[in-house]
Amino acid sequence: MDGNALDERGQPEIAPENAGETRRATAPAMEARLGAAIPVLDHGFLRVVDYMGDDAAIVQAARVSYGRGTKSARDDAGLIRYLMRHWHSTPFEMCEIKLHVKLPIFVARQWIRHRTANVNEYSARYSILDREFYTPAPEHLAAQSASNRQGRGAVLAGDDAEAALRLLRDEATRDFDAYERLLGDGGDRPGLARELARMALPLSAYTQWYWKTDLHNLFHFLRLRADPHAQYEIRVYAEALCEVVRDWVPAAWAAFEDYRLNAETFSGPAMACLRRMLAGEAVTQDSSGMSAGEWREFQAALAGRAA
Amino acid sequence: MDGNALDERGQPEIAPENAGETRRATAPAMEARLGAAIPVLDHGFLRVVDYMGDDAAIVQAARVSYGRGTKSARDDAGLIRYLMRHWHSTPFEMCEIKLHVKLPIFVARQWIRHRTANVNEYSARYSILDREFYTPAPEHLAAQSASNRQGRGAVLAGDDAEAALRLLRDEATRDFDAYERLLGDGGDRPGLARELARMALPLSAYTQWYWKTDLHNLFHFLRLRADPHAQYEIRVYAEALCEVVRDWVPAAWAAFEDYRLNAETFSGPAMACLRRMLAGEAVTQDSSGMSAGEWREFQAALAGRAA
Amino acid sequence: MDGNALDERGQPEIAPENAGETRRATAPAMEARLGAAIPVLDHGFLRVVDYMGDDAAIVQAARVSYGRGTKSARDDAGLIRYLMRHWHSTPFEMCEIKLHVKLPIFVARQWIRHRTANVNEYSARYSILDREFYTPAPEHLAAQSASNRQGRGAVLAGDDAEAALRLLRDEATRDFDAYERLLGDGGDRPGLARELARMALPLSAYTQWYWKTDLHNLFHFLRLRADPHAQYEIRVYAEALCEVVRDWVPAAWAAFEDYRLNAETFSGPAMACLRRMLAGEAVTQDSSGMSAGEWREFQAALAGRAA
Amino acid sequence: MDGNALDERGQPEIAPENAGETRRATAPAMEARLGAAIPVLDHGFLRVVDYMGDDAAIVQAARVSYGRGTKSARDDAGLIRYLMRHWHSTPFEMCEIKLHVKLPIFVARQWIRHRTANVNEYSARYSILDREFYTPAPEHLAAQSASNRQGRGAVLAGDDAEAALRLLRDEATRDFDAYERLLGDGGDRPGLARELARMALPLSAYTQWYWKTDLHNLFHFLRLRADPHAQYEIRVYAEALCEVVRDWVPAAWAAFEDYRLNAETFSGPAMACLRRMLAGEAVTQDSSGMSAGEWREFQAALAGRAA
Repeated sequence: MDGNALDERGQPEIAPENAGETRRATAPAMEARLGAAIPVLDHGFLRVVDYMGDDAAIVQAARVSYGRGTKSARDDAGLIRYLMRHWHSTPFEMCEIKLHVKLPIFVARQWIRHRTANVNEYSARYSILDREFYTPAPEHLAAQSASNRQGRGAVLAGDDAEAALRLLRDEATRDFDAYERLLGDGGDRPGLARELARMALPLSAYTQWYWKTDLHNLFHFLRLRADPHAQYEIRVYAEALCEVVRDWVPAAWAAFEDYRLNAETFSGPAMACLRRMLAGEAVTQDSSGMSAGEWREFQAALAGRAA
Repeated sequence: MDGNALDERGQPEIAPENAGETRRATAPAMEARLGAAIPVLDHGFLRVVDYMGDDAAIVQAARVSYGRGTKSARDDAGLIRYLMRHWHSTPFEMCEIKLHVKLPIFVARQWIRHRTANVNEYSARYSILDREFYTPAPEHLAAQSASNRQGRGAVLAGDDAEAALRLLRDEATRDFDAYERLLGDGGDRPGLARELARMALPLSAYTQWYWKTDLHNLFHFLRLRADPHAQYEIRVYAEALCEVVRDWVPAAWAAFEDYRLNAETFSGPAMACLRRMLAGEAVTQDSSGMSAGEWREFQAALAGRAA
Repeated sequence: MDGNALDERGQPEIAPENAGETRRATAPAMEARLGAAIPVLDHGFLRVVDYMGDDAAIVQAARVSYGRGTKSARDDAGLIRYLMRHWHSTPFEMCEIKLHVKLPIFVARQWIRHRTANVNEYSARYSILDREFYTPAPEHLAAQSASNRQGRGAVLAGDDAEAALRLLRDEATRDFDAYERLLGDGGDRPGLARELARMALPLSAYTQWYWKTDLHNLFHFLRLRADPHAQYEIRVYAEALCEVVRDWVPAAWAAFEDYRLNAETFSGPAMACLRRMLAGEAVTQDSSGMSAGEWREFQAALAGRAA
Repeated sequence: MDGNALDERGQPEIAPENAGETRRATAPAMEARLGAAIPVLDHGFLRVVDYMGDDAAIVQAARVSYGRGTKSARDDAGLIRYLMRHWHSTPFEMCEIKLHVKLPIFVARQWIRHRTANVNEYSARYSILDREFYTPAPEHLAAQSASNRQGRGAVLAGDDAEAALRLLRDEATRDFDAYERLLGDGGDRPGLARELARMALPLSAYTQWYWKTDLHNLFHFLRLRADPHAQYEIRVYAEALCEVVRDWVPAAWAAFEDYRLNAETFSGPAMACLRRMLAGEAVTQDSSGMSAGEWREFQAALAGRAA
């Protein structure tokens, strides 16, 4: 892209001349991040374009609800922990972030299912996509899991790996060749309409968008996508975002880590087992009343590993 | 309220020491507005607590969608007008505003029906409401319209006005007296729970909240609530907000005025009439095929007055 | 209300002549509930007006996502439990319910904060509210909690109770008297506009609305409002709704009970303590690293009581 | 797909044994449509899986808002027209529809931008996509418009058309070949994880989903996507849906046609011109104060053709 607000590498400029005084809440660590691309995958990135609010803005909104006199009751970090623990989500909605993200289309299709966000995507109806597609690094070239229909198994190795990589790369290259031939050379022969030619592109092609959401919905996104069960290719974006959030709202981030990322939820039946175990009883799956799957997940939660 | 972030008059402080450098988009006229209460009604106000983006942010987001080469095609204001005219709403969603509003409860109940916003309201479960209620100024003490079930008729005058005002004021005062007696004096006799005592309050009592929304949804709110058919008591808030938006995003505001506030929409049947009229035919309601109500609204639209 | 679709008591008729054949999913126990008011509080009610889907619709939607071959993998109830446990919320969104609810305004103000729903409320701009307001039964006339700013303490008794009840009843009666005087007698003297007169009403006055939402969002509502910490006056509506949901989607309800209502979530630090306790260590608050509040909630969760 | 609720052709069965009595609102013409696939494009379809409400449900909800006495004021169709004309959208939200749609991925990516809907999509993380992709019929093989970056120009003919079609078909076939080779043959050699292999697929590949939305949001979707400016490949789905809505809620459909599909909106400046024209003045673009683009659209609106 070479538009007004984008530099040669398709990135929006956060120009020095934009720097100015503001009386809004500012987060110094975020100022340092503004406009700087964090590389993700082989051609993707994620950058902060703008943000609103900070930890203090969460507290300020909570105090409107709590009103008089809470000041002395608990300090800010404690109040934020309380809000997180008790699912009081509205104060977190008072913070907002706007990102510029470049990502493969198959990742974008997962991402967009989070509906409570504002999105402006690069349109291949209007414009021509750059010749960029995702190819996994060899260490991420996983086989289908034999036990879990959704998961990855061992990493492919040797000839299998090389064949898969070559196939992915060759076919994506051919797809982009076809795309360009369909579009024509701008000479006398008319090219196919862009909105049609794009359908020759593979799902590995990169797209980009502006994505804007509030902190509550961002936390929800991160809980699902920074999870070990999320597909690697979206998880790396979520993990990069975790670093951003840690800088932006450190107290909220710490509460999110404790009460969401590192938390475990136990069902009613699991709680009954847990109480028996704490009373000294040796509970087995048979005596637990849980299904095999639930028991396995229960054991994993107690041991602190992914189920 | 006397919390951390609020001054003695229940207003969030935008302290000078918060002023700092930022590389985010800033709108100078909004910086001047930050934290300054705009009085609305007898005890209400509206103030800007924070904002994200400006006219350039709308253009920047649109250019991501349009991609290469649009720069030369039209200038920024023209692009914004194009977006508004063609209902391309997503670029407007890239701007966000956060307000602190103090408003009567019956106004808050209309306002909250706009669902696409973030809200933190002062909670009378936790806190005690100040003794403040809305009393209309004499010139807004309108009688029920005889012709329009939703509307106001002539303004009450003389004894009728005085009696209505006195009744409103006396009963609201009694309600607050009851509220305070129910809450108790903090002495030995236990007071009723705050969450119960509050139900003695009248709908004219003031509440307050933080309200945060994006520019697209704000425009939708303003289109409905800055309209002459909106109830006066919410319209004055909408009108105050119009002034804020004009300062914040002047190009978007101008487009909104032309394409929404001052626009008229004609139905298929109305367009058929219009074409006959432009061809020189004298069309009447009888020959129009429209109902009496539609015809009256059609005539009003052509004449440029409220139906 | 005396409109088309409402009977004399302001209730929508589900007339026998509406009964017909359908090939849509039907839930027999819901058919029996259609149109029947469940009384709540002293003048309120809740009734099912319409519904879409059943347990099988949840499974059907999940199988679109899972595709080929899941049929044999687990039975329907097991699949529903799996979805609930792993926060796969979209299949639950495939069920929808529409209710007619009559409720005090202060309850309506809490309820409406759940934004992902469709609402049509009785408008006091157009219409005149019936003389009906909520008065707590003596056993619910709770004092303010001394320890918890949000909670209720002991029930008022004797003279205190009687005085509070009389005050609530007398002032609400006076408010309705004022409301009616403001509206006028329909004679020569003009009444105040309805949209203004309504502000004399107390927050205990009843309103009514149609409320429509999907099962996922309904579960979220029930998790917050059927909780012991919710205010009694909204909790009774949530509890009545729980009975409806149990009839409508029994498998989803059972999963919701196990994995939400009766579940406990432990933070990262709480999990660390739990592991030490399961290993035989006697952990105290001091050695837990938790705050007093967190420790109290942790102990309550282990003991199975409300914190 | 061969799951429980889907027949051999991947279609949900609406089995005769599901037919039963209901006291819910039923729309006879919709009963006839239940489960029947409407073919769209070369391999796509759209079918109604469930619906809630009918024209009477819209009226019923509106009457809750209007309350007493509106019955005599206007008949149901007139009330629905009034609601549509005055943007009273909430009564339309009381109707809900659930569809099963099979559509090319590049169409799905446009469709999903309508966020206020519930979606369950076939997951290529779990399952294997059938070998089906979209190829335009020769009469829809349009060249890029020379004047409009977003639009289509003349249809390609002769060799150009044949070359483009062959290229699209050959490359999509190769992509599916690669996809299947990547997945492996289920023998000893491990296949690539499904979640990775899918990225070799072209954007022309078909996916499918359940999509559920309310009538208000459906109308918004149809206004944008049944428009002549929408891409042909999504417009045909929108047009098929228009037929469904016409059967479902005929009065609401008629109002939608008059007040949305066939309506024109004129800006403030355009209204000023229109008033001068009606007064007999010959207005030109020069004297109109409008830009060239606005003037062209204004002329098109007056003439009743697409701009």
